[in-house]
Amino acid sequence: MEKERIARVAARLKEMGLHQTLISAPASMFYLTGKWIFPGERMVAIYLNDSGEATLFANRLFALSGTVEMPLVEYDDTEDCVAVLAKYLSPGKIGIDKDWPSRFTIRLMQARADLTPVIGSPCIDQTRLYKDEKELTLMRESSRKNDESIVRAIRRIRAGMTEKQLADIYLEESASQGSSGPSFEPLICFGANCAEPHHITDNTQLQSGDSVIIDVGLTWQSYCSDMTRTVFVGKASDEQKRVYDLVCAANAAGRAAVRPGVLMKEIDRAARKVIEGAGYGKYFIHRTGHGIGLEVHEFPDVSTSSETPAKPGMIFSVEPGIYLPGRFGVRVEDLVAVTEDGCETLNHAPRELTEIEL
Amino acid sequence: MEKERIARVAARLKEMGLHQTLISAPASMFYLTGKWIFPGERMVAIYLNDSGEATLFANRLFALSGTVEMPLVEYDDTEDCVAVLAKYLSPGKIGIDKDWPSRFTIRLMQARADLTPVIGSPCIDQTRLYKDEKELTLMRESSRKNDESIVRAIRRIRAGMTEKQLADIYLEESASQGSSGPSFEPLICFGANCAEPHHITDNTQLQSGDSVIIDVGLTWQSYCSDMTRTVFVGKASDEQKRVYDLVCAANAAGRAAVRPGVLMKEIDRAARKVIEGAGYGKYFIHRTGHGIGLEVHEFPDVSTSSETPAKPGMIFSVEPGIYLPGRFGVRVEDLVAVTEDGCETLNHAPRELTEIEL
Repeated sequence: MEKERIARVAARLKEMGLHQTLISAPASMFYLTGKWIFPGERMVAIYLNDSGEATLFANRLFALSGTVEMPLVEYDDTEDCVAVLAKYLSPGKIGIDKDWPSRFTIRLMQARADLTPVIGSPCIDQTRLYKDEKELTLMRESSRKNDESIVRAIRRIRAGMTEKQLADIYLEESASQGSSGPSFEPLICFGANCAEPHHITDNTQLQSGDSVIIDVGLTWQSYCSDMTRTVFVGKASDEQKRVYDLVCAANAAGRAAVRPGVLMKEIDRAARKVIEGAGYGKYFIHRTGHGIGLEVHEFPDVSTSSETPAKPGMIFSVEPGIYLPGRFGVRVEDLVAVTEDGCETLNHAPRELTEIEL
Repeated sequence: MEKERIARVAARLKEMGLHQTLISAPASMFYLTGKWIFPGERMVAIYLNDSGEATLFANRLFALSGTVEMPLVEYDDTEDCVAVLAKYLSPGKIGIDKDWPSRFTIRLMQARADLTPVIGSPCIDQTRLYKDEKELTLMRESSRKNDESIVRAIRRIRAGMTEKQLADIYLEESASQGSSGPSFEPLICFGANCAEPHHITDNTQLQSGDSVIIDVGLTWQSYCSDMTRTVFVGKASDEQKRVYDLVCAANAAGRAAVRPGVLMKEIDRAARKVIEGAGYGKYFIHRTGHGIGLEVHEFPDVSTSSETPAKPGMIFSVEPGIYLPGRFGVRVEDLVAVTEDGCETLNHAPRELTEIEL
């Protein structure tokens, strides 16, 4: 049980003017208990009050007894799970997880007319936003393994292979690094497919002149990595080289802008301005980055409208790209952790222009 | 816009003693509008009252104007979507989709203290439970294409291939049948992997003596198919033959039990009893089947505890199996549609013992 984390969440709960909340997102429950529980159709939730008392409510089918340190209340399929939970709650406001299915919230209100549900998620989401030392160590190691896996996968690129085959090679390499699995489906694009940021890896075959986008991540001890490298097959054209250098410069400018107090939209601006300045602004068609940790997409949002200031402990991606429809695309993505006076880049795989002779 | 379906849902709403409800599950919105909308983080919902008046509320980003016949109220990211919706609701009880994220329900209650949320899903779920003629035609065609795809995939089984390769072959065949994609990830098991009903298709190589479970489905005009066949590589052993015949007999007994008025638990019993009678009861470790339609898992539940009576228009799977840990497994699954006096089996791929010489 993560006592310090529970205390931090309870302190935020108090700041929100709330005495009690229910936490039900699987990653949030893992964050507090060290145990992944996927409720499916059933009800599983942590009840937390502002004194830092936490109790886990779960169906007996999950067999949690003896596996978690947190006090546990179990129920079975013959019982009304909401009625079991309702008995433990104090009258007044109750925080509810933003994504909890409405069937539970509605039944809870029907069982207890003296409860007023409010959205309770910020207390846990805003705590998870700042990675502690233990998390930072795991995030570093997850990215180190991702670096090693992508470098090895790039060495195995061969003439005529398909996007799916290169995805499988990355998965093989990341498994051999001890990863428990990918943090998202490998996104591999060849040639014109690189110009679609949401392309789905398919059986397209590699050809000379292609750009190759490799956007991949793995899970290590429950923590996610996520990075992108772009390489070229055969000699890169002058335009491919120009675009590649521009994206690398935007990536570097974005990372260089990161320090405590700088707003996320300013980091986005720093990266975007490099690309706009060279006349490619309309080809950078997505936000600059996103937070990451136990989930591959977390807070903060690194976009043109995000007013969130960077603070030490935040980890997010910086991933500018240029997408030229029907021709090619380039994206270069690294994870950064905000430090006291700047940031630490978690990825170290080379960013030099790579031309692969097949 | 599906006027008859809207009228049926409105009639059920009235039966539930409700004047109004919000429908937000993507498959349910498709059922009423003919349009798939995936809300992501945003709010999209159909407001329906018991007079059968339906209005679609959606963010302008979904660009629905002119694409749906249903009256449309649009909002954009600068507006409070819940406030826009709240203005349209009558005081009193309001049905809410069981899976609607609590953040919307809570904000709606905060905006309108005169509303009492109740779970509204049964009005639409119980309507979707009975497939109409148009749906039945599409479900038949989806299963016909699935039959054809599995037969062609089985013909392409070769020595040394991996589970993933056979999965890709099925996907290729189903795409060539015009499917828009799989209805779930193909579940292919070789040998001892067949004994794990939740095995994930991997790089296990096919060997002589293996049982091969092929549990696959495709999507045709938005409707799902789902079937399983088991074949053997080399000569099946006497025990493999005995287990295979038993599972086929359980499948046939389950289907033979289907007629209006029979409870789902009686259908489960009919299949289970065949396997129990031969001493393999403890190796049949899951329910007998599940409903299917726009989603691959719908009502009804065909399990030992399900009191739902079969009625014409229901479509569900009958999929008994025997799983011998560390050795092999067999499952045979067909979809059935309840008719006035029995059922129609939607799958026609052969069930004869198939031994493949490599």
